[in-house]
Amino acid sequence: MAKPRGRDLGLRFPGQPGPLNAITDVPGVLVGQTTLDGSMPGAAAPTVRTGVTAILPRGHSVDPVPVLAGTFALNGNGEMTGCHWIRDAGSFLGPVCITNTHSVGIAHHAAVRWMIRHHAATFGPDHIWAMPVIAETYDGVLNDINGQHLTEAHVLAALQSAQGGPVAEGNTGGGTGMICYEFKGGTGTASRRIPVEGRDFHVGVLVQANHGLRDWLTVLGEPVGQAMQHDRMMQREAGSIIVVIATDLPLRPDQLERVARRASIGIGRSGTPGGNSSGDIFLAFSTAAPAAQGAFQTLTCLADAHLDPVYLATVEATDEAIINAMLAACDMPTLKPAGRICRAIDGQALAGMLRGAGKCG
Amino acid sequence: MAKPRGRDLGLRFPGQPGPLNAITDVPGVLVGQTTLDGSMPGAAAPTVRTGVTAILPRGHSVDPVPVLAGTFALNGNGEMTGCHWIRDAGSFLGPVCITNTHSVGIAHHAAVRWMIRHHAATFGPDHIWAMPVIAETYDGVLNDINGQHLTEAHVLAALQSAQGGPVAEGNTGGGTGMICYEFKGGTGTASRRIPVEGRDFHVGVLVQANHGLRDWLTVLGEPVGQAMQHDRMMQREAGSIIVVIATDLPLRPDQLERVARRASIGIGRSGTPGGNSSGDIFLAFSTAAPAAQGAFQTLTCLADAHLDPVYLATVEATDEAIINAMLAACDMPTLKPAGRICRAIDGQALAGMLRGAGKCG
Amino acid sequence: MAKPRGRDLGLRFPGQPGPLNAITDVPGVLVGQTTLDGSMPGAAAPTVRTGVTAILPRGHSVDPVPVLAGTFALNGNGEMTGCHWIRDAGSFLGPVCITNTHSVGIAHHAAVRWMIRHHAATFGPDHIWAMPVIAETYDGVLNDINGQHLTEAHVLAALQSAQGGPVAEGNTGGGTGMICYEFKGGTGTASRRIPVEGRDFHVGVLVQANHGLRDWLTVLGEPVGQAMQHDRMMQREAGSIIVVIATDLPLRPDQLERVARRASIGIGRSGTPGGNSSGDIFLAFSTAAPAAQGAFQTLTCLADAHLDPVYLATVEATDEAIINAMLAACDMPTLKPAGRICRAIDGQALAGMLRGAGKCG
Amino acid sequence: MAKPRGRDLGLRFPGQPGPLNAITDVPGVLVGQTTLDGSMPGAAAPTVRTGVTAILPRGHSVDPVPVLAGTFALNGNGEMTGCHWIRDAGSFLGPVCITNTHSVGIAHHAAVRWMIRHHAATFGPDHIWAMPVIAETYDGVLNDINGQHLTEAHVLAALQSAQGGPVAEGNTGGGTGMICYEFKGGTGTASRRIPVEGRDFHVGVLVQANHGLRDWLTVLGEPVGQAMQHDRMMQREAGSIIVVIATDLPLRPDQLERVARRASIGIGRSGTPGGNSSGDIFLAFSTAAPAAQGAFQTLTCLADAHLDPVYLATVEATDEAIINAMLAACDMPTLKPAGRICRAIDGQALAGMLRGAGKCG
Repeated sequence: MAKPRGRDLGLRFPGQPGPLNAITDVPGVLVGQTTLDGSMPGAAAPTVRTGVTAILPRGHSVDPVPVLAGTFALNGNGEMTGCHWIRDAGSFLGPVCITNTHSVGIAHHAAVRWMIRHHAATFGPDHIWAMPVIAETYDGVLNDINGQHLTEAHVLAALQSAQGGPVAEGNTGGGTGMICYEFKGGTGTASRRIPVEGRDFHVGVLVQANHGLRDWLTVLGEPVGQAMQHDRMMQREAGSIIVVIATDLPLRPDQLERVARRASIGIGRSGTPGGNSSGDIFLAFSTAAPAAQGAFQTLTCLADAHLDPVYLATVEATDEAIINAMLAACDMPTLKPAGRICRAIDGQALAGMLRGAGKCG
Repeated sequence: MAKPRGRDLGLRFPGQPGPLNAITDVPGVLVGQTTLDGSMPGAAAPTVRTGVTAILPRGHSVDPVPVLAGTFALNGNGEMTGCHWIRDAGSFLGPVCITNTHSVGIAHHAAVRWMIRHHAATFGPDHIWAMPVIAETYDGVLNDINGQHLTEAHVLAALQSAQGGPVAEGNTGGGTGMICYEFKGGTGTASRRIPVEGRDFHVGVLVQANHGLRDWLTVLGEPVGQAMQHDRMMQREAGSIIVVIATDLPLRPDQLERVARRASIGIGRSGTPGGNSSGDIFLAFSTAAPAAQGAFQTLTCLADAHLDPVYLATVEATDEAIINAMLAACDMPTLKPAGRICRAIDGQALAGMLRGAGKCG
Repeated sequence: MAKPRGRDLGLRFPGQPGPLNAITDVPGVLVGQTTLDGSMPGAAAPTVRTGVTAILPRGHSVDPVPVLAGTFALNGNGEMTGCHWIRDAGSFLGPVCITNTHSVGIAHHAAVRWMIRHHAATFGPDHIWAMPVIAETYDGVLNDINGQHLTEAHVLAALQSAQGGPVAEGNTGGGTGMICYEFKGGTGTASRRIPVEGRDFHVGVLVQANHGLRDWLTVLGEPVGQAMQHDRMMQREAGSIIVVIATDLPLRPDQLERVARRASIGIGRSGTPGGNSSGDIFLAFSTAAPAAQGAFQTLTCLADAHLDPVYLATVEATDEAIINAMLAACDMPTLKPAGRICRAIDGQALAGMLRGAGKCG
Repeated sequence: MAKPRGRDLGLRFPGQPGPLNAITDVPGVLVGQTTLDGSMPGAAAPTVRTGVTAILPRGHSVDPVPVLAGTFALNGNGEMTGCHWIRDAGSFLGPVCITNTHSVGIAHHAAVRWMIRHHAATFGPDHIWAMPVIAETYDGVLNDINGQHLTEAHVLAALQSAQGGPVAEGNTGGGTGMICYEFKGGTGTASRRIPVEGRDFHVGVLVQANHGLRDWLTVLGEPVGQAMQHDRMMQREAGSIIVVIATDLPLRPDQLERVARRASIGIGRSGTPGGNSSGDIFLAFSTAAPAAQGAFQTLTCLADAHLDPVYLATVEATDEAIINAMLAACDMPTLKPAGRICRAIDGQALAGMLRGAGKCG
């Protein structure tokens, strides 16, 4: 049973979330996860604590319709494939998968295979160029990462099982073996509703949170990490965070790149200055209809003057998704070095501290 | 007489500042300002409320020795000249001047003239390429910006008067006519001490703060803007912020670019998501000795593994400099639209709110 | 009387130019130049050999309608203002001026003044943000650049006199004191016609050419520089080139940035590898109608699949504009060091060499 | 038996190559290739015509010493992993592999495995972050790319067999199924010698050439493609080129990025304007010793003033490597669409054309 999320605990995050407070509030965006958690009682492979999180921007549609997109790396000590083409074409086709550092290859291989099969009927005899977006963070403290245990079948399972609705957070999918502000980290999500001219749109964020030092940890403006010094894990930042931002607002690629850049401020809200060994890489995409075919195309997009609420939503949802990832996570024993426990943050204790500051109901 | 700065009021900013808590804590870095404040009683030109702030990275030395540098624009709706060459050469020669949007040209013209004269003895018959760094934010609400009142003499005066010691904050220099979070903004500064291997270095920040909406304003994690709704100025973000980061740590250009990028998180601490109409442009430079001449050069630099404290110092000092700019500023009547007063934030009221949250001594 | 251009000499440049073979083949694009050529007999100020070239993307219209734009710097040892905003907004408003390195400031100052006045009726009481595009190359070998002789009046004159029709090339405007492949350089232009779906569009290029070593010089694939070793000027590349690319094709900002990037290949055709001390900075803009106002905007643009002819046109016109600049230029005595003559390339000799290679009619 | 290379045919390429005229002229740089050429008589899998080319920047050393590096994408329709970290850290550890588009994942997976094993003794119980550089071009016209036939064993074989000496060009390794200017393309290499202060250094280039339209093809300045209209393959550019530039000169990351940018001009020499559907992605690395460990590091690098010969060498060697790739390639029947032959360029015919132009001995 899932632990309470931030708002369930009463944490007073700003802004108005969508119905699920998840990336799946953006219509058509589906999430599938394969979780290999060897730390669970009776697990066959106890040192395997990893997985993959798959995001389908256009659901299970077999039509190969790209989504417009933009990316930004606050700090590049990580990987997100597909970014060269996103930068120049402003779009990508196919899934986004997030896994551990040493499984980027197999996730890429499997995602390509899935794309070839998935779009086979549409492409028919035509050429398909499959260049999926695969991102990663490092889980070698909690997972036997050098064993490269993720398989093609695991990735295909995540892709095929992608669905709407609530997203399992914490020790799930690619986030299974993550550490965040020296607490147990993982997968987290949140969303914001953005009304424009009487119509509701959403910005949804999914993070794989594996970054930060305890002393930096700040929740809703309170430097709680400095008061929670138990079970610290490391002396020096060695993690990363991947932020995926989805929206159904019609945004151009250059606008989406600017949105992706704002995730910098979003991750900063929980205290990180963007550590040097961290791969802080962000992707923003829009599910709005792309331009129609023809020599001259017509593209609809939100006016720049309306972007500030989108930026604010991105900042807020990124921050809330990180806290949700931590709150949903569960304790996990370490592998390298062995013999310790990476503790999940105590949600009730956090709520208590924030209640004292008037930031929790 | 200057109003109390943030720490004077008891605000509990994190980190250890340098002796002056100013960019001038970096040895050799001097600041000069020309302030044209027509709003002062008896001013000859009451609609002129502008100026220029000059930073000399190598003081008044006539040796033309570049400083290594890097830049980043979180949002580019603004100007900072010299960035093409900084990006490729990783260095610049000459002063940094910050003024209003429509005085970039005259400040550039004057800075070039100053460089030609200043380095004349050294260059002698040789060529000098003068490409100074001139940045700006918009002061058209409080200043007759279209009058282009700044003159070459004003800029030369700022350059010639540059000195160490405390920096006049608030309605001073280029910051004279600025608005920040709908309070009166302006020039602000702060610094952090960074010990490395038993030696003290500093990161110093100077901002020209002209950005933000009241509802966003957050100080030390408290959303104080939402509780200070009086005298609001605008519906929509229309400002900008320039952040200049100086250090005596030996950093490579690529490291300085990464430092500049962290100012994004720094400005985010007071609440802005980086508005679309904002020119949020950041410059970082190092006063350490550049490489010696010769076909093969030797460059000393801080190891990447030691950068996180520099990033954190940049984030913290940027945030504190913005708050210092607001606290030092004074009320100013508006010009366009006319008839209102742009109020300075009430430092005591702010301190009171923060004291209630345990964030002010 | 103008000297013969490349095609007049019979040089077999590839592609189909527009009627004028000039940037002014793009409807609405006007060019004005102020030339201060003290090397002409009887000149009052013999050491002043400089000027300014002004390009009006939307002619003399007082409506402040931006043009979509993109930029690229192959090598950044130079200046082009306005690029931060072009990168983020994908557009700019106002003129493009090209002058010498030490006159960037006054040209910026004058262009801002011109914009304030020019658009006064339209803006009325509203705010105008003037951030014009000012670029430069260095003319200190032939001009008393440290005298900063260009004035506001000179720049305003260039702006006010901007017109369509043929563009004066060679020792004109900002190109007056330039050196190219150690021959006399300057202003040059060329264009290409691009039919799309039965309609004719144009790509027009204007260069201020001040780059290159003699040994590198290649015309239509022939390494002619190695056979023209007379009157060499320098040992080491110390120049720059500005390339402005205009089109009436509807291109998005990201497409225009890609177009700008192709000027790298364009300048490479005459032999330069992009010297380290060179400011090789390129701007591309489209005069097509921008998106209409409203929360949701509709933008028409050329499909990516149709871009290759635009890229090829850019490469070809950039190359031809450089050769045209050299062919139109006239001898000029040097100032620093003094006592030499910077020779114009001998068009007939060049034509002869190319005729031998079958590349001249 | 290898066909004659460009210089063997008498083609008068400019510049002075190293002893092998190959990337392996850079000491320590090794190349290994696995070639799966089903088009060879008797091949078991006739539709498989692909492979992988592995470059080991530091040979078979088990010490995990990064090489400093920089990258540039003239056009991003392709993949090169590892670029986020190269951009921020300015270095990478591990091999560079080039393969087909749909084998990027398996090559990444195998390269990670190889790195884990290869550096096992050195890392011991410590963490290794494996983020290898895997690049690709598309071979779906000549190879059953959707079959994803490359295996982990194939990649490991290429890595393990990497060696110095001459590099097999043409239909080899990742270049097996490539098409270049509508002739058969593939793997090619060239180098240039660069003396600095009496010591010889080298710039070596390896390309996987899969780009260009016949009409564009230009060799040594002669537009030979327009005269070789037989056996054309396509209407529209659909290919890509990967350029890897190695040097033993001590260059900083920012210098290496500038070097990588010059490959744009290098590929332009054979006529391409950088097609929109092309992934033109370039990597430059230096094998010079990196900075020593410690809080303050000392880095030796070439002075910027000495870079122009490096840029020129990069341009020249890139161009020559492409022509070498074409000259070494052999005819191959097409798969999709089936029934045609992708012809290798006729080296003797080419030499004849160039001899007529005085460009072949």
